[in-house]
Amino acid sequence: MSEPVLGLDIGGTKLAVGMVSSDGTVEEMLVEPSHTEQGPQAVIQRLFRMGDEAIQRSTLGAPRAVGISCGGPLDARAGILISPPHLPGWVDIPIVQMTETHFGLPAFLENDATAAALAEFRFGAGAEAESLAYLTVSTGVGGGAVLDSRLHLGAAGNGGEFGHITVRPDGRECSCGRRGCLEAYCSGTQIAKRAAEELAQTSEPSVLREVGIVTAAEVAEAASLGDPVALRIWDETTLLLGQAVTDLTNILEPEVFVLGGGVTRSGRMLLDPVARQVRDTAMAPAAHAARVELAELGDQVGVVGAAAVAEYWLGLGAPTPPPRVRS
Amino acid sequence: MSEPVLGLDIGGTKLAVGMVSSDGTVEEMLVEPSHTEQGPQAVIQRLFRMGDEAIQRSTLGAPRAVGISCGGPLDARAGILISPPHLPGWVDIPIVQMTETHFGLPAFLENDATAAALAEFRFGAGAEAESLAYLTVSTGVGGGAVLDSRLHLGAAGNGGEFGHITVRPDGRECSCGRRGCLEAYCSGTQIAKRAAEELAQTSEPSVLREVGIVTAAEVAEAASLGDPVALRIWDETTLLLGQAVTDLTNILEPEVFVLGGGVTRSGRMLLDPVARQVRDTAMAPAAHAARVELAELGDQVGVVGAAAVAEYWLGLGAPTPPPRVRS
Repeated sequence: MSEPVLGLDIGGTKLAVGMVSSDGTVEEMLVEPSHTEQGPQAVIQRLFRMGDEAIQRSTLGAPRAVGISCGGPLDARAGILISPPHLPGWVDIPIVQMTETHFGLPAFLENDATAAALAEFRFGAGAEAESLAYLTVSTGVGGGAVLDSRLHLGAAGNGGEFGHITVRPDGRECSCGRRGCLEAYCSGTQIAKRAAEELAQTSEPSVLREVGIVTAAEVAEAASLGDPVALRIWDETTLLLGQAVTDLTNILEPEVFVLGGGVTRSGRMLLDPVARQVRDTAMAPAAHAARVELAELGDQVGVVGAAAVAEYWLGLGAPTPPPRVRS
Repeated sequence: MSEPVLGLDIGGTKLAVGMVSSDGTVEEMLVEPSHTEQGPQAVIQRLFRMGDEAIQRSTLGAPRAVGISCGGPLDARAGILISPPHLPGWVDIPIVQMTETHFGLPAFLENDATAAALAEFRFGAGAEAESLAYLTVSTGVGGGAVLDSRLHLGAAGNGGEFGHITVRPDGRECSCGRRGCLEAYCSGTQIAKRAAEELAQTSEPSVLREVGIVTAAEVAEAASLGDPVALRIWDETTLLLGQAVTDLTNILEPEVFVLGGGVTRSGRMLLDPVARQVRDTAMAPAAHAARVELAELGDQVGVVGAAAVAEYWLGLGAPTPPPRVRS
């Protein structure tokens, strides 16, 4: 049995650490508020102490490596957090070097969505597949993929910017500066914003009017109760998500397409219309090959993904590869 | 020096064969009209005789394998042409088995766009890259990719249906049954059709009115002369191509994005606006990583691609691979 890996997940809201065994089980998962306002040095020292505690408490034995999952932009190969928008003031942080120094172990960094894709591939909804595409629908929209059992890293090292494919040319403004991106419609933030805009534009009755500041979860709940304003927003959300997932299915042809992130807590209300659209409108071979499913790892996905990335680069299971044209 | 490979390219208009050396040089390329109305047996026997002649004439020595490039749908793994629309009446043709029997050599089949992507990767515009995306803009629009020096095959075996990503939701009807696909706007056929529709809808003067049946090449030429009707069609074409190439760049993050196919004979008139749009609107890391270029292999791409596919599966150059999670 191989040794465990320590997984560190750096979010804008919370820090999470855990000891992850080779079958993906998490032991001693610890979660704390991030308090990013304390600045990188203080937060990272706290993260490391959480890691120390998890190692000490764990019955799995000493870890053989540390994996780190964080939102981009980051340079995974150089091991540097460049300037993640969810970590204001964190500029060019050499997180891998700091981690290696603190723990005396090899450390590996990856974009959170790419790490989550690998976690679902190894231990979640894609555990039987050879390829997987993953879309996280959360505060923002991100994604990652495992193709032919390998991480899709991309020449730019992002493993795919799925949140910024165009779903409505000349549509809503996106935080990236373009218009009509998937993220400009379907992130939790934008679902809530679209609902607020719709409420301001119509005098139609809606249960959402009783809510102070509308959230995506409230839109989903109101839609499930048949509220007409919420239903319009929700139907547009699933239509555009379905369009993006269909395009991604045509392009990547994954065996399984996994939807994760906070907005997918709405469950089958989100999954069913998206899966139906892919089945009905993706090209026949790609549509037949791909099943669309909800993520399975829930709140553990960050820690498990971080550990999976470390195991990946340590060369876990490297059977006969398919041909490679050049190195 | 490794032995050559015989490349066979089965098109709806022409058959092409050639002996391809390990550096991608083509010797004894023979081209004949397809005459698909003669039916699969007669056409394939003629293709094989062309192959025999190329082998006999070649100074490269005996081939070690045969590669076959053809439009889909096909089952590359099973070696069967399912029912390619450009080959009417060709249903479930076991082309690989027939080829192996005739030549007494191992044979390999691949979708023409995927084979072309591999050809450009090895010997054309992507010869220095580790990843490449390829879009062919021709009678139809197709594509393929090489990611991390490996063919992107996909769970459905198509290596990506790039022609059917949505560029205009609820837009023009596509031959695939959906609406708003890239192919429904930017194939040579549809460029010509859009120009004809535009001419019918306006009384504006246009040099295209003097032409009987407008082609995409004539639209390009008229646009280059400043014809306003042609310019509108051309600008919409490059805008939508640019949008699709931007989305594909965000998703696949290739090192080089190659545009090939008949419509790209228009050269920089097509390339420049598309490349500019990618540079200006793709996400910064992906946009910086990718250069957009015209295909380099011209009319030889089918034969070279067919041979490259055979070499690929024979395991040409298989250096240390990156980790693979499972086989």
